[in-house]
Amino acid sequence: MSPRTPKETRTVITDLVLPSETNPIGNMFGGELLARMDRAASISARRHSRRIVVTASVNHVAFNKMIPLGSVVTVEAHVSRAFKSSMEVYMDVWIEDRESGLRSKANEAIYTFVAVDEMGSPVPVPPLKPETDLEKERFDAALRRKQLSLVLAGKMEPKQATELKALFE
Amino acid sequence: MSPRTPKETRTVITDLVLPSETNPIGNMFGGELLARMDRAASISARRHSRRIVVTASVNHVAFNKMIPLGSVVTVEAHVSRAFKSSMEVYMDVWIEDRESGLRSKANEAIYTFVAVDEMGSPVPVPPLKPETDLEKERFDAALRRKQLSLVLAGKMEPKQATELKALFE
Amino acid sequence: MSPRTPKETRTVITDLVLPSETNPIGNMFGGELLARMDRAASISARRHSRRIVVTASVNHVAFNKMIPLGSVVTVEAHVSRAFKSSMEVYMDVWIEDRESGLRSKANEAIYTFVAVDEMGSPVPVPPLKPETDLEKERFDAALRRKQLSLVLAGKMEPKQATELKALFE
Amino acid sequence: MSPRTPKETRTVITDLVLPSETNPIGNMFGGELLARMDRAASISARRHSRRIVVTASVNHVAFNKMIPLGSVVTVEAHVSRAFKSSMEVYMDVWIEDRESGLRSKANEAIYTFVAVDEMGSPVPVPPLKPETDLEKERFDAALRRKQLSLVLAGKMEPKQATELKALFE
Amino acid sequence: MSPRTPKETRTVITDLVLPSETNPIGNMFGGELLARMDRAASISARRHSRRIVVTASVNHVAFNKMIPLGSVVTVEAHVSRAFKSSMEVYMDVWIEDRESGLRSKANEAIYTFVAVDEMGSPVPVPPLKPETDLEKERFDAALRRKQLSLVLAGKMEPKQATELKALFE
Amino acid sequence: MSPRTPKETRTVITDLVLPSETNPIGNMFGGELLARMDRAASISARRHSRRIVVTASVNHVAFNKMIPLGSVVTVEAHVSRAFKSSMEVYMDVWIEDRESGLRSKANEAIYTFVAVDEMGSPVPVPPLKPETDLEKERFDAALRRKQLSLVLAGKMEPKQATELKALFE
Repeated sequence: MSPRTPKETRTVITDLVLPSETNPIGNMFGGELLARMDRAASISARRHSRRIVVTASVNHVAFNKMIPLGSVVTVEAHVSRAFKSSMEVYMDVWIEDRESGLRSKANEAIYTFVAVDEMGSPVPVPPLKPETDLEKERFDAALRRKQLSLVLAGKMEPKQATELKALFE
Repeated sequence: MSPRTPKETRTVITDLVLPSETNPIGNMFGGELLARMDRAASISARRHSRRIVVTASVNHVAFNKMIPLGSVVTVEAHVSRAFKSSMEVYMDVWIEDRESGLRSKANEAIYTFVAVDEMGSPVPVPPLKPETDLEKERFDAALRRKQLSLVLAGKMEPKQATELKALFE
Repeated sequence: MSPRTPKETRTVITDLVLPSETNPIGNMFGGELLARMDRAASISARRHSRRIVVTASVNHVAFNKMIPLGSVVTVEAHVSRAFKSSMEVYMDVWIEDRESGLRSKANEAIYTFVAVDEMGSPVPVPPLKPETDLEKERFDAALRRKQLSLVLAGKMEPKQATELKALFE
Repeated sequence: MSPRTPKETRTVITDLVLPSETNPIGNMFGGELLARMDRAASISARRHSRRIVVTASVNHVAFNKMIPLGSVVTVEAHVSRAFKSSMEVYMDVWIEDRESGLRSKANEAIYTFVAVDEMGSPVPVPPLKPETDLEKERFDAALRRKQLSLVLAGKMEPKQATELKALFE
Repeated sequence: MSPRTPKETRTVITDLVLPSETNPIGNMFGGELLARMDRAASISARRHSRRIVVTASVNHVAFNKMIPLGSVVTVEAHVSRAFKSSMEVYMDVWIEDRESGLRSKANEAIYTFVAVDEMGSPVPVPPLKPETDLEKERFDAALRRKQLSLVLAGKMEPKQATELKALFE
Repeated sequence: MSPRTPKETRTVITDLVLPSETNPIGNMFGGELLARMDRAASISARRHSRRIVVTASVNHVAFNKMIPLGSVVTVEAHVSRAFKSSMEVYMDVWIEDRESGLRSKANEAIYTFVAVDEMGSPVPVPPLKPETDLEKERFDAALRRKQLSLVLAGKMEPKQATELKALFE
């Protein structure tokens, strides 16, 4: 399978925040944003693999910025690294101020998907070939994240997680 | 503020998986489960703090088990540790087989919420007093998770994350 | 088929009241509560019968208490009596005050379900064995309710509804 | 207040049954129909009273006929009797076969609504003046149903429910 | 196939405007009304053809009147002309003032549907026989609209659109 | 107000087609696509005007291609011309084949929005400055469409619609 670039997997969902998606102080529910990100990321992974994809995991997500009712929210997803049958998808979430037109970063998030066949069994996916500096940086970091994920799941000994361990030295 | 127990914050959402919540091979979307868990966890945090609560972060979540269309899914949430104005909520997700009646664990997940006033500013929350062994274990582990979260957010030096660092030695 | 207890069929749905579920004075629509109760009750009946279940009837439901926007509503369902292939499900609905943490009863409701096979034909269900006093009381009253239901449907002569008739003497 | 006729309060909702509204054997959820009927009936009561209305109770509803996925369902609501500030609404539910065009009755249901002011306090409503034979019959029966409702709620002694008692003699 | 009358295809959807369906100044989204009209019109076309129907086109729709939150909106659809396998459906949209009970016209819209078999191939539909003056007027105008549609789609030379061309002379 | 370019108003919504959005032969409802397009177009018009915007009209829309369940649908909207307080928005709708990755055009559509203040009164918007050949072509055609719209609404004599009339000569 010939490699694909992050750009080929780019997926954008821009949408409004509606009243049924906000909490009592008028900000978007975290759960609603998590669900929108899952849709964007799954389409990105599907574009990379051209397969049915299922969510395998969600990395730590911090909600640093409240997103008020009526905001325009843009979720932009790119595959950041492909493994054997799994793909890491990196998302940038933007909100924009209606009057000034200024965009600001509201969130980043990282989901992992697995490509499967009709029976749900994992199938191989093409490699990813990062092009820009940012894409290369995210590509490299994806390996550390995979190690952390394996450690947290008890599938890798912390001592073997070479890349990750370096962080604490 | 007098402490509360995990039991007092217990929140259960049991519901069916409907066709509009499933992917092409008939399993529940990860994003839909993330949203249900956000609702259960936020009610649990609200019961602990008796305040408006907002999602602050979601820990690493792994989707180990596919949840087929028509399943009965139970999300059970308990506050697992309270900090100054934030609360960690631990969730266990169960699915059950209709014919045998057997329940099996589908997922675990950990979300963090912050209690806020009407203006969105953080307010203090009561301490949590774990009772059972499982509650105590989750209470202790919550501290390590908080350190990991601070490290990942660049707000704590990895070397200072004493509890976490110990894992890699 | 060995009998089951009401406790084994207990089903809880706790959820928020969102803006799209409220009327012009900010209270939950009756129809939305009826739909949530149907979901809780159907899961309870399914847990009793381990079969596909379909709603057969809804008893008289009174909405005595308004449920304001932002409330946490808990629907708690138990099978209260099993007949040949039908099951009566009794529900208690609670709302809680965020600031005081006090719970109050908002509603009670009774739905009846029929267990069916894949073709929609009724199939037998196990008997129910009430344990607590409240469960026994509801079990006994279920018979009177069934008679009333048959009378109202014109399937039983009022004079034969012995249990029910006694009420008017 | 000058009286209104049932015809003036007629409200029709015709809509399809979608996949997210059906159970595992492809029939419409009872709860979904209850919610649609609440919407139709509330509009009918609002047309009678020209006030905000809230659901007060739902009479016994039997689901005699399965309503398959893709059906066209018509809910037709008329106010059947007005009391001091409450209104009984009678509904006929029809489904139609796509190929033959034949309509058949799927359900009848009776909901009661109360007219309220902006603070939620009951306000008086105009009287209803039935015109056709069917309207008159439903108007008369409404009084018996109100007595039954009061008896079931423990607000009237069964012996005083003259109209109702006659049924059992 | 014997002809049908517009009256036989009449379809009414009356429903409330909910908070999740309104824009920041509290009026119904145009897109939400377009979707409700599609549902009403498709049922009307299905009643005419007794076939599966798919939306083929939407004529120019003007939104002349804002529809505020809490409004009761009535969409009334009739087939206005049948062609070989397509049907034009004409809709009148009404809103009513709760306090005065006055109805006013909010919109008109025209959608076209095609009757298809299970494979999605077009199938013939019965002719339409207009009865009232309004029905006859809409029936005649439907031909001009069809020509305009063909011209706009580049499937008919403007010069051949005799009926339409007359408008500009 | 300094002019904006179409590129600055570009809005993309990419999303899946879910089961509750499809008709009996498994294709996306026209009404659902109309609603998604309204959301994309309104965000585009809001980006141009930095104002609250309301849907003023929808041009003739033809549904030439069926969009099957599970498709990834991309709606791409750009403002194509600005008038005094209204903006025409042009949309291209794409679907893509999962296995080949090929994109194909499913639809084009044109909506018009008006910028309003908090009271709903129209306010002026900046001019649009088209850059590419396609943008210029759509900019020019927008004037003819506006004339057609005025003619159809009876607000302009067909004979005065110079640009439009030329089409029929």
